[in-house]
Amino acid sequence: MPLLVMKFGGTSVADLDRIANAAEKVKREVMRGYDVIVIVSAMSGKTNELVGWVETTSHLYDAREYDAVVASGENVTAGLMALRLQEMDVPARSWQGWQVPINTTSAHSAARFVSIPRANIDAKFAEGFKVAVVAGFQGVSEEGRITTLGRGGSDTTAVAFAAAFGAERCDIYTDVDGIYTTDPRITEKARKLDKIAFEEMLELASLGAKVLQTRSVELAMRYKVRLRVLSSFEDTDDNSGTLVCDEEDIMESKAVSGIAYSRDEAKLTLVTVEDRPGIAAAIFGPLADAGINVDMIVQNISEKDYEGRTVAVTDMTFSCPINQVARAKKAMEDARSKGSINYDDLVVDTDVAKVSAVGIGMRSQSGVAARMFAALAAENVNIKVIATSEIKVSVLIDRKYMELAVQALHDAFGLEKA
Amino acid sequence: MPLLVMKFGGTSVADLDRIANAAEKVKREVMRGYDVIVIVSAMSGKTNELVGWVETTSHLYDAREYDAVVASGENVTAGLMALRLQEMDVPARSWQGWQVPINTTSAHSAARFVSIPRANIDAKFAEGFKVAVVAGFQGVSEEGRITTLGRGGSDTTAVAFAAAFGAERCDIYTDVDGIYTTDPRITEKARKLDKIAFEEMLELASLGAKVLQTRSVELAMRYKVRLRVLSSFEDTDDNSGTLVCDEEDIMESKAVSGIAYSRDEAKLTLVTVEDRPGIAAAIFGPLADAGINVDMIVQNISEKDYEGRTVAVTDMTFSCPINQVARAKKAMEDARSKGSINYDDLVVDTDVAKVSAVGIGMRSQSGVAARMFAALAAENVNIKVIATSEIKVSVLIDRKYMELAVQALHDAFGLEKA
Repeated sequence: MPLLVMKFGGTSVADLDRIANAAEKVKREVMRGYDVIVIVSAMSGKTNELVGWVETTSHLYDAREYDAVVASGENVTAGLMALRLQEMDVPARSWQGWQVPINTTSAHSAARFVSIPRANIDAKFAEGFKVAVVAGFQGVSEEGRITTLGRGGSDTTAVAFAAAFGAERCDIYTDVDGIYTTDPRITEKARKLDKIAFEEMLELASLGAKVLQTRSVELAMRYKVRLRVLSSFEDTDDNSGTLVCDEEDIMESKAVSGIAYSRDEAKLTLVTVEDRPGIAAAIFGPLADAGINVDMIVQNISEKDYEGRTVAVTDMTFSCPINQVARAKKAMEDARSKGSINYDDLVVDTDVAKVSAVGIGMRSQSGVAARMFAALAAENVNIKVIATSEIKVSVLIDRKYMELAVQALHDAFGLEKA
Repeated sequence: MPLLVMKFGGTSVADLDRIANAAEKVKREVMRGYDVIVIVSAMSGKTNELVGWVETTSHLYDAREYDAVVASGENVTAGLMALRLQEMDVPARSWQGWQVPINTTSAHSAARFVSIPRANIDAKFAEGFKVAVVAGFQGVSEEGRITTLGRGGSDTTAVAFAAAFGAERCDIYTDVDGIYTTDPRITEKARKLDKIAFEEMLELASLGAKVLQTRSVELAMRYKVRLRVLSSFEDTDDNSGTLVCDEEDIMESKAVSGIAYSRDEAKLTLVTVEDRPGIAAAIFGPLADAGINVDMIVQNISEKDYEGRTVAVTDMTFSCPINQVARAKKAMEDARSKGSINYDDLVVDTDVAKVSAVGIGMRSQSGVAARMFAALAAENVNIKVIATSEIKVSVLIDRKYMELAVQALHDAFGLEKA
């Protein structure tokens, strides 16, 4: 029997009506001949309520208890979904993580899958059950404690089940109808993509297109799980949504598939750092220890007359999320007072944003960066930092130009046209 | 290490402040040298919310899914209580039913205990944990599905753990400070009892003093678990509350320990039933099949001239909860149309209440019934039905006299005096 995995997020199961609506979509696939594994999140708001209770109860909370409390939200949805399906004459039952069992590591609140044995669920399919409703986001450790995978873990659960059960596809039902070339709130020319490659999705996800959890895309890429993002709130068919798939499944790629952005960036520059071997490690080691998510790094080397000698000096610039600036400054000042680094000044610019052009087509098509810089220059947008990867070009610019830059690049790469 | 079981009901863990308050009571016992097993209910209102969702989702719901959903309320409280205790430096962890495991039958929503193996919890006590916080009301079936014990099941869980672990005592924390000689809302002379025998408690519980679930008292009686009822909302010490214990632990008993009442009674009389062997079975069989909780039964035999012959006839009177009257009438009418019984009329009186005097002292002291009837006669209260058992005398009276009767009997048996 062909098998589908269908995942419904918190807004898709927010109340009983929406659970019923999701159940209709499941039933349609059953009627088409599929066995279905449904992965459900907690009803929206429930997880936050539970997390709030835990945090109020205990400041340095025990992650094992946190997980035991927080996982209960998904259990409720799983039971209700199974009941709703039964009411519609679809043979279904709910599965909590320990019942499957979804074996994970003991890294509570950030557990990783160890194994998902098929035997128990397969036995129920063999008995005539058509749907297994599995509580997402959770598992069980070797010690028999309940674990959770961290936020967004239900996407990862869905992909892991699709891999374990050899599903034909993993459909992620959410509150948007697919992946867009850019944020439709910024330009109405934004267009839904029919297909996108895993690598592109990873760059878009981490850059702010928060539709799919990054880890779930990584897992799908590794196990070649065809992933589809589509809306719970529209009538859907086989061509709905966006298919996230292997590069080889995409016949022709444009150079650029989408424009991503991130508003909450800050740029920090250490002015006049001595340029010597090991200096980068001396700077970024303490930042990593302080938990700073350093993103872009740029270094310009120059020379400086220092007490009669000419020494190689550099300005070291990096970006990080704006809410980590205070911690980053403290880490740098501490390193300077310990003597492990030296610098004249630390200049912080918190009025910047990042805009990125992403596309697997860049691998075979040259000149993407040049077209990008030309499009920004035509709008008089000054580029402060540039970083490139194999399938991405990112620039840091003044935040006030962010929307303008996204619109200009969307036009420049012709993304409104299919 | 001596061990205590402490159980906190829904109002005692209604919010985070109350959970913290309950945790203080647990810590006090730990400081006194006890290992403690804490049994928790769901935060008040939560179980009703979950039940409402299930009932709205599915009319003929699958009890296995019902149990999986509804049991999640206790899991949340167990985790929060463990966190709170940890915050107070008490080594504690939560236990869900399947983790202990609390093995039950597969009678979902009305499961019964099969076994509670001590090994897992004992191992944690041996590691230095001082408190096991166990989710009440739930267990796990042989098939690995979550079961629940039915309403009030957390009391039963507490007693079962006390029996399994040989606890010194099982303390039931609730929103009243003990068992009273009668309802203090009816007479301010009502007095808290220091001790009450299991048998008395059973009669009082089933008669409407809804403090302890009947099944938990039965279980405590069978395993001789010393059960104490006390308030979560007051400072408590070793002498607080009411100890429910074996008859032998009570040195001297008055003839009557308490006056119970039940407001929601109805009296039904089948007029002129032929008095023949098997007639009671012919009447009460169909009532049992219809799920009617018949309580008191009285039969008066007379003779009647029937088509020239003298036959023995009887009026058969019984009582049942007022909300079952319609079903009871239908069951009797069906039986008459099938010809299995015959009667001239079915007279229903829904304006009655039951008042009972309960006391193990009745076994050794005579004249209790006579004193009761005299006290009621002195107030001109007419008695409609009388029923007696070894430790109880009950009367059915007009409902409007119920409070008066309770007050008169409380006075007549001198219950205000210790």
